[in-house]
Amino acid sequence: MKTQAAVAFEAGKPLEIVELDLEGPKAGEVLVEIKATGICHTDDFTLSGADPEGLFPSVLGHEGAGVVVEVGAGVTSVKPGDHVIPLYTPECRECPSCLSRKTNLCTAIRATQGQGLMPDGTSRFSYKGKPVFHYMGCSTFSNYTVMPEIALAKIDSSAPFDKVCYVGCGVTTGVGAVLNTAKVEQGATAVVFGLGGIGLNVIQGLRMAGADMIIGVDLNNDKKSWGERFGMTHFVNPREIDGDIVSHLVAMTRRGADQIGGADYTFDCTGNVTVMRQALEASHRGWGKSVIIGVAGAGQEISTRPFQLVTGRTWMGTAFGGARGRTDVPKIVDWYMSGKIEIDPMITHTLRLEDINEGFELMHSGESIRSVVLY
Amino acid sequence: MKTQAAVAFEAGKPLEIVELDLEGPKAGEVLVEIKATGICHTDDFTLSGADPEGLFPSVLGHEGAGVVVEVGAGVTSVKPGDHVIPLYTPECRECPSCLSRKTNLCTAIRATQGQGLMPDGTSRFSYKGKPVFHYMGCSTFSNYTVMPEIALAKIDSSAPFDKVCYVGCGVTTGVGAVLNTAKVEQGATAVVFGLGGIGLNVIQGLRMAGADMIIGVDLNNDKKSWGERFGMTHFVNPREIDGDIVSHLVAMTRRGADQIGGADYTFDCTGNVTVMRQALEASHRGWGKSVIIGVAGAGQEISTRPFQLVTGRTWMGTAFGGARGRTDVPKIVDWYMSGKIEIDPMITHTLRLEDINEGFELMHSGESIRSVVLY
Repeated sequence: MKTQAAVAFEAGKPLEIVELDLEGPKAGEVLVEIKATGICHTDDFTLSGADPEGLFPSVLGHEGAGVVVEVGAGVTSVKPGDHVIPLYTPECRECPSCLSRKTNLCTAIRATQGQGLMPDGTSRFSYKGKPVFHYMGCSTFSNYTVMPEIALAKIDSSAPFDKVCYVGCGVTTGVGAVLNTAKVEQGATAVVFGLGGIGLNVIQGLRMAGADMIIGVDLNNDKKSWGERFGMTHFVNPREIDGDIVSHLVAMTRRGADQIGGADYTFDCTGNVTVMRQALEASHRGWGKSVIIGVAGAGQEISTRPFQLVTGRTWMGTAFGGARGRTDVPKIVDWYMSGKIEIDPMITHTLRLEDINEGFELMHSGESIRSVVLY
Repeated sequence: MKTQAAVAFEAGKPLEIVELDLEGPKAGEVLVEIKATGICHTDDFTLSGADPEGLFPSVLGHEGAGVVVEVGAGVTSVKPGDHVIPLYTPECRECPSCLSRKTNLCTAIRATQGQGLMPDGTSRFSYKGKPVFHYMGCSTFSNYTVMPEIALAKIDSSAPFDKVCYVGCGVTTGVGAVLNTAKVEQGATAVVFGLGGIGLNVIQGLRMAGADMIIGVDLNNDKKSWGERFGMTHFVNPREIDGDIVSHLVAMTRRGADQIGGADYTFDCTGNVTVMRQALEASHRGWGKSVIIGVAGAGQEISTRPFQLVTGRTWMGTAFGGARGRTDVPKIVDWYMSGKIEIDPMITHTLRLEDINEGFELMHSGESIRSVVLY
């Protein structure tokens, strides 16, 4: 069949809207009509050429929602008409990682996914007879895409595509980092570095978890009202304080009898390795946990004095918010439907596929929290 | 009163055995007759001058066992005749850290202890009328010492001083890192870097916890039989393998259906920041925990790519094995008395106080696991 898609033909160039050939689903695969897709920083990172594992030409996009059109042989968990969210972190429930009960990082199709291919080692997309790579196992910048069955979360069919597509990455990453990875408890203090699409979801995760003090840190003062909208209690612009940001945050988080200070939990949502260190060092001696969510540039490294860890801080990270896609994503959609979490205000722009490059520009200028393309 | 002590008058010089003046215990303090003390790398680190917080002249030593001689006003938890182990990490049970249920790093007397003083801001030791500093709140290189009540663990009075003094630091640090900090479970795989006095205790902690694969890493092949004696199942000398140590360990720890590899838990007992990074990177994607136990040189930093954490590894550290001194140290002494852990073979040398400098030489040459001074 044919499908309209925004194709990344070359690093650093705008996407081009073309008609691709798409092969139908093989055994264990599913053809999905994508109804909406978010534009995420990770797509931009790959498109820019900075991602050393980026492949071209490819169909980017990994934050979508759609409807099952056709299933391949042996597919049992979804059927045509089901509403689904594509998962760049699948959940096979059979590999050592899925069975470990300790990680969401399913390894069933890791190798081929990293090569831009379906599990059988081939691509379903082609353009003028030449293969085009899949991306993060999703390729939601195509109106139709083929996915492995284990990479589809079946969701409530009344959920609006243009909102819940965001659960496919940003919402789950932010909320999940709080609930699954950090496991924040009632009454905690927390600092969130970077109030973009991920940071705001970390903030609403902290509100859900019952954190008492939720400090947002951003260089852009416009983010203050954004943070407050989702539960932030304090805002700090590092450029507007005296002295360094770590001491400032440590002082802010001294409470009651505790004269040490430091947050119980800190989250880096910037991808900046200097900020990652600040986040660790602003966490509390003895028990502070610092979670890296942002993706750093190729080859960049984090550093600290080991004394920071020996005195009880824990440095950790999260991918897809520690969520098991098929199990947890449908729950998060339900939380949205019941009003437990908000998504609508974060979708600041909706675009047609032919205007997708505008979505990247809105991201670069800092104008959008999230742009969503509607097919 | 007078007490014999080995005094560190100057950085980088041998200790000198002299007679010091010792004031009796003030309110909340206890006079202890030290019966035996281990010589630990941390004493050596401070004596060398490498410790930026080292103070001179001072009475070093923090790994002792002894008997209560006299108690100051208000002391209720110990009485003359009680057998005790001095605690460089006290347990006041009242400060925000003790009450947090999340850390053993009691902060009740942290400031004065760091200044080499008793909680009232003065020293009990003096030499020729001039004050001599306490060290880590213990100063077990003196035959008699004064300690805060909250820094004494009351232990089984039938336990031999010359063995259980080692519980005051090395045993608790190693065994506690496994049980309290990493919380290793049955069947785990683990790698221990550095098979000195701490590493061997990590190994016996892993044996207690039921780890299936316990890999020891050391540059010295003599350590192989030492490790095996306490439960090590595999030994690696990084100088005797092809390729780099991380890949080697990852390959060794691939088991059954798991084609990824990496240990569930890794422990750095070297203090070398390059090894700390290797330890992190040799832990398993998705759930590996790497615990820093060794103390790095002043100003040295650890580094890694944040991707290591984002893909599920956790970097943490431990001080005094995460043990709450007054609560946990008596239990560890009981474990020794009941045969649950071994100490005797690790005490390779016993010395008289006047030969204490020989103990440091045995440490430098790698001849001793632990030297103990008997008063």
